[in-house]
Amino acid sequence: MPGRPFLQVPGPTNVPERILRAMAQPVLDHRGAEFAALTRELLDGLKRVFQTTAGTVVLFPGSGTAGWEAAIVNTLSSGDRVLAAVNGQFGTLFAQCAQALGMEVEEIAIPWGAAVSPAAIHERLAADRAHTIKAVLVVHNETSTGVTSDVAAVRAAMDAARHPALLLVDAVSSLGSIDFRFDEWGVDVAVCGSQKGLMLPPGTAILCVGPGALAAGERGGSPRYFLDWRPVIAQNRDGFFPYTPATSLLLGMREALHLLFEEGLARVFARHTRLAEGVRRAVRAWELPILCGDAQSHSPTLTAVVLPEGMDSGRLIAWAAAHLHLSLGAGLGKLRGRVFRIGHLGWLNEVEVLGVLGGVEIALNVAGLQVPPGSGVSACASWFLRSMRVTAGEGAQKS
Amino acid sequence: MPGRPFLQVPGPTNVPERILRAMAQPVLDHRGAEFAALTRELLDGLKRVFQTTAGTVVLFPGSGTAGWEAAIVNTLSSGDRVLAAVNGQFGTLFAQCAQALGMEVEEIAIPWGAAVSPAAIHERLAADRAHTIKAVLVVHNETSTGVTSDVAAVRAAMDAARHPALLLVDAVSSLGSIDFRFDEWGVDVAVCGSQKGLMLPPGTAILCVGPGALAAGERGGSPRYFLDWRPVIAQNRDGFFPYTPATSLLLGMREALHLLFEEGLARVFARHTRLAEGVRRAVRAWELPILCGDAQSHSPTLTAVVLPEGMDSGRLIAWAAAHLHLSLGAGLGKLRGRVFRIGHLGWLNEVEVLGVLGGVEIALNVAGLQVPPGSGVSACASWFLRSMRVTAGEGAQKS
Amino acid sequence: MPGRPFLQVPGPTNVPERILRAMAQPVLDHRGAEFAALTRELLDGLKRVFQTTAGTVVLFPGSGTAGWEAAIVNTLSSGDRVLAAVNGQFGTLFAQCAQALGMEVEEIAIPWGAAVSPAAIHERLAADRAHTIKAVLVVHNETSTGVTSDVAAVRAAMDAARHPALLLVDAVSSLGSIDFRFDEWGVDVAVCGSQKGLMLPPGTAILCVGPGALAAGERGGSPRYFLDWRPVIAQNRDGFFPYTPATSLLLGMREALHLLFEEGLARVFARHTRLAEGVRRAVRAWELPILCGDAQSHSPTLTAVVLPEGMDSGRLIAWAAAHLHLSLGAGLGKLRGRVFRIGHLGWLNEVEVLGVLGGVEIALNVAGLQVPPGSGVSACASWFLRSMRVTAGEGAQKS
Amino acid sequence: MPGRPFLQVPGPTNVPERILRAMAQPVLDHRGAEFAALTRELLDGLKRVFQTTAGTVVLFPGSGTAGWEAAIVNTLSSGDRVLAAVNGQFGTLFAQCAQALGMEVEEIAIPWGAAVSPAAIHERLAADRAHTIKAVLVVHNETSTGVTSDVAAVRAAMDAARHPALLLVDAVSSLGSIDFRFDEWGVDVAVCGSQKGLMLPPGTAILCVGPGALAAGERGGSPRYFLDWRPVIAQNRDGFFPYTPATSLLLGMREALHLLFEEGLARVFARHTRLAEGVRRAVRAWELPILCGDAQSHSPTLTAVVLPEGMDSGRLIAWAAAHLHLSLGAGLGKLRGRVFRIGHLGWLNEVEVLGVLGGVEIALNVAGLQVPPGSGVSACASWFLRSMRVTAGEGAQKS
Repeated sequence: MPGRPFLQVPGPTNVPERILRAMAQPVLDHRGAEFAALTRELLDGLKRVFQTTAGTVVLFPGSGTAGWEAAIVNTLSSGDRVLAAVNGQFGTLFAQCAQALGMEVEEIAIPWGAAVSPAAIHERLAADRAHTIKAVLVVHNETSTGVTSDVAAVRAAMDAARHPALLLVDAVSSLGSIDFRFDEWGVDVAVCGSQKGLMLPPGTAILCVGPGALAAGERGGSPRYFLDWRPVIAQNRDGFFPYTPATSLLLGMREALHLLFEEGLARVFARHTRLAEGVRRAVRAWELPILCGDAQSHSPTLTAVVLPEGMDSGRLIAWAAAHLHLSLGAGLGKLRGRVFRIGHLGWLNEVEVLGVLGGVEIALNVAGLQVPPGSGVSACASWFLRSMRVTAGEGAQKS
Repeated sequence: MPGRPFLQVPGPTNVPERILRAMAQPVLDHRGAEFAALTRELLDGLKRVFQTTAGTVVLFPGSGTAGWEAAIVNTLSSGDRVLAAVNGQFGTLFAQCAQALGMEVEEIAIPWGAAVSPAAIHERLAADRAHTIKAVLVVHNETSTGVTSDVAAVRAAMDAARHPALLLVDAVSSLGSIDFRFDEWGVDVAVCGSQKGLMLPPGTAILCVGPGALAAGERGGSPRYFLDWRPVIAQNRDGFFPYTPATSLLLGMREALHLLFEEGLARVFARHTRLAEGVRRAVRAWELPILCGDAQSHSPTLTAVVLPEGMDSGRLIAWAAAHLHLSLGAGLGKLRGRVFRIGHLGWLNEVEVLGVLGGVEIALNVAGLQVPPGSGVSACASWFLRSMRVTAGEGAQKS
Repeated sequence: MPGRPFLQVPGPTNVPERILRAMAQPVLDHRGAEFAALTRELLDGLKRVFQTTAGTVVLFPGSGTAGWEAAIVNTLSSGDRVLAAVNGQFGTLFAQCAQALGMEVEEIAIPWGAAVSPAAIHERLAADRAHTIKAVLVVHNETSTGVTSDVAAVRAAMDAARHPALLLVDAVSSLGSIDFRFDEWGVDVAVCGSQKGLMLPPGTAILCVGPGALAAGERGGSPRYFLDWRPVIAQNRDGFFPYTPATSLLLGMREALHLLFEEGLARVFARHTRLAEGVRRAVRAWELPILCGDAQSHSPTLTAVVLPEGMDSGRLIAWAAAHLHLSLGAGLGKLRGRVFRIGHLGWLNEVEVLGVLGGVEIALNVAGLQVPPGSGVSACASWFLRSMRVTAGEGAQKS
Repeated sequence: MPGRPFLQVPGPTNVPERILRAMAQPVLDHRGAEFAALTRELLDGLKRVFQTTAGTVVLFPGSGTAGWEAAIVNTLSSGDRVLAAVNGQFGTLFAQCAQALGMEVEEIAIPWGAAVSPAAIHERLAADRAHTIKAVLVVHNETSTGVTSDVAAVRAAMDAARHPALLLVDAVSSLGSIDFRFDEWGVDVAVCGSQKGLMLPPGTAILCVGPGALAAGERGGSPRYFLDWRPVIAQNRDGFFPYTPATSLLLGMREALHLLFEEGLARVFARHTRLAEGVRRAVRAWELPILCGDAQSHSPTLTAVVLPEGMDSGRLIAWAAAHLHLSLGAGLGKLRGRVFRIGHLGWLNEVEVLGVLGGVEIALNVAGLQVPPGSGVSACASWFLRSMRVTAGEGAQKS
């Protein structure tokens, strides 16, 4: 198909060509001095992204799923009780992961489309006088629903309950795109992947581990080998890894960090907020419901759009992929067929978002929904125009 | 700047990543067997693109300007009279080139924005009973104005005047994007560059030379060395070149031809026609004049848009480049400041065009022109929706 | 440092530029039709490489270590007894992996530099009348010592003992370089990584799983989630994965399979055998011991060279990396400082091997060992000359 | 063919992968601010490479042939007399170029394999009391013979004759590899291409123009358009070009300059000298004549080796290309079949040279010449060992 593809699933995201080229370098000797310097640069840079000084960054070749498993097997032992706040498909899977690895999982079920309730967590923990609950699992940004939860408030609820459980946070679709403050929010383990806000291909699980989690891992945890973070942390001191690291991805990660720091994290977050607002205005212009019901919880990285009864989002998505070179995200789990998701994260700008919305409008009409072509783009473009805060006439008026 | 750039000048065009990767291969030995096979594949493929069996394709490392010069020095001798149909900046320069190289140039001046007049050519040639005019210079697609002229009609006019002058055609911004029929139209020399419809970076001049021009070159021409096509044609028989060829570009050209033939030339032309119509509908929705005044002559590869008095297109363009990562074409020559040009050629699809138009709308508003944001996109998206000829409901209705 | 690097560690290997370019493609939507076709092509191709029809190929983003762990947690349960044949560092770690995951590991210690003893395995299994041993762990090609063991003979020994234990084989540094016959040899699980004979960067664990291992996994295994092969196999039927796959590596893997099949597996194996023989002849010319003591067990993919007492291989390696852009493998585990390893696997040809040997000769001399410069290259070049089986005079004699 | 290719023709050279990746960037708008900054950086950097402050660098998309033509048409007028010192194929062609463009060429014939004779030039110029000779053409490094001439001595000879002729120098296979001092040597125009010491693919002619040549171009020259350097120099002041520049090559050129300056020009020259000496020692070990007869004139960038009567270098070269992935240079012009040339310039290191020599030894034997395999490598490796001036034992001895 001619023209550039638009990979607007909510991750993996369009990999910037600077990163693709950085990854195309010859493979380094992962036991050499050049590699050791690379490792140190990456770990330092990722700490800036996690906004931590107390935390330790750990990398594994693997997916975000490997990251979940690492968070669990390094801190929890078979039979440990965990409290999982579940408000979407990834929360469901995070809980399943803990269960499959032998934990007793208690779920706080939250409607898909709503944010995690700190009050519910507080209530449950306050009732756990014996402190049988060892960890709380929370997804910062639910990629299946487009909902961002308030991790700081979750920590405050845990503190208010004076409960010592560890706070394990999935930051897969937030880190690098949405403000995430590991230290300030008191996160114990944050789990991320390479393929979202970090703009890399998939293939690396990225964890940030706080002192409490490290200590838990020292004295316990589950049987583990590949995902044991202790030898990783030990060898990282010299810049090496106990396993063969995914060198190409690491070369790309250096470039990804350059991109983030060149733009500036604050500006990256603001850009995501601005683009997301434009997308939501378009969706409202189409008079389609956004799955996330709460204005405070809209995700800056993706928007889940609900289709009218009788329409199948799978067919819409397949048509857009086949005819417009535009990949949208499907409804996951119990949302299958009912919603489609627009990813607006990573290496993305206004012109691309406008094109994507124009493409979605065509696809919606082909699917039988008669939204006026241009209506969503119009709402979004008006917002971009306003939000770019330009003085009228700055562009081309003769002085 | 985050996100992908939109290089919407009317060439060079966005180079497809498949071509960029093909060019990143190690340099071949240009005296080896592998290279000879490459040369043959390219010359054969380019003949298909020129729609010729009688013509001979000649490549020079150089720009389109080098191609003009090659067309002239290989067929004309100092003092030869040439008739140049001039309806834009590139026609002007083509004529200048002939003049600088010693020819006597007679211009047929045509308003910028109009097509070349076959009648005027007929009239002038018919009056030249002594056949002092040796060549007619025509630009097929004027990149400065967005006007496509009718080369077949020019040839018909020359034939009607029974005049033996050679027909030298600039096909720089048409070949590979607009139907171009070297044999059927009786072109003697066609000149192209690599950086437009062929989707390559600049750096290679591509000529197609008919038998009459070859013969003229055998018996005459100007003093020449680098641009002499005789040794090129001679060595090409074995797959080699008398100079060091631009091997990387040639590797990219193979991939470019694959892309063109995979899509199919007819579909490539239809896509350009469809995208161009969408752009023009957007411009009309903005109530801005299109420079090309004649509906039959609209270029499928670019549109020149006239700004109201008092606006400076240079500032509009600079703002879009700086704030939207969107490069538009400037007004050239006497159009400087008055028009901007949207290139819609090469490796381009609907979603990209919609994004570009949305970006232009923002830039126009910033420049002080209050076009309703989304108005142009709306007109274009409606056209795309219609022209994609989809059955209503094909996309997502449940059956 | 000027010039091309020589990454002659025994993996990761020099990644062919065709693979690097294939990996630099834009990331695919891993839920789309194009990706599903890619998955099927890869699994089919890898089955050819494993020489299996009965086996099922399973991929995980991860290192070879993840592959070991997957082999264990999917087939064995906590407390299961395994017999590990240990003849080098990777055998040691494979056994450690099983132990860390809760298995009772019984080691058959073999001198480092010798091959695994089928007789010893037979003896131990025959004594295990109660069939408490559930699996035998063997490393096909010990990357730390340069020894290839006879997996077919191990299987024969197991069969002779009529023992039902599973045969789990590390094929990390053999698959794709050394003849490996999954079906014929009766392997139950083979574990490989992407970064050796498959010529990719590290980052993907590749397993081949036989019916017996699959059945064991259905009825048992350890607590597992990320490395559970059941959901992978289930979703692979449609071309998808339960986790986000490492798409870039998979794009590269397609190209790697093309390279292997274009050359032909038999020719790939023969090339490795030929290059390895050349390296060993060079080492003998230097009068240095090859760690592998048995002529039948020399590895076609790497050679471990023993330095005289008093020399430190680490310094030799560091000097070669810093001054010659040549990376050699260090001595691992108890061989640290005593040996250096020359990797001669993957995308490698005669000219490169000759250069590497010349470089090693310089480094040896700098290190104080006065091998005549050129002596090893001479022995190797003579062998290459002979083994290329060329008729004298074929090259340049006038006929 | 497996393994990396060795492109050891004396240009084009192996393009460093850093340059290939730099060229794979998206095409820039050649009218934008980013491009203007690039132009300035390149022109400044190239002046450092030419070692000039007085000269003006001019770039054309084209081959070195275009550079010759530009040097001639911008400074000389039809019928002007030029004195061409011809000591090889490229000198012959440079003279032919001048002749084809209308000049009266007087050749000083020098044996192929000898350097240009300053005395002969002095003699001829001194005799030209009327100063009818307008230019002297000299090739700094004859790529067909492997001979470097003394340009400073040529200038001294011209000065001694008090002759005002311009000194036009072909520096195609010397610039960036061999010390070249535009200002100090009083060169008027130097001509280079991108594909030799600058390590780029072919496609750009690079000129350095001194004040005298500029003045000659202002008041005269031949009819010219594409290769007229006046509009180039004029537009370069703002960072632009009158034609569409070969943007990808220019992006690569920036990286090439980085590579040269990171290593340091002095070290680049020393490396070429060192590698060349190693190659010549190998050739002597093979007891084959080096075409260049004078020890003072050996080229640091290539060596032309003479084969015994009855052998055909073309067959040797074809065999090496087909069986060893090794490209050697053919004998050119009257040397066809008699010599082969080893290019040792550009991005090259010791290990690569040793491999190349080992490969040549195999090819020579196949061709029927029984040089002991390893004999040349041995001579070369001994030289490298010595010239790297390492303290004995620095590498690996325990302290």
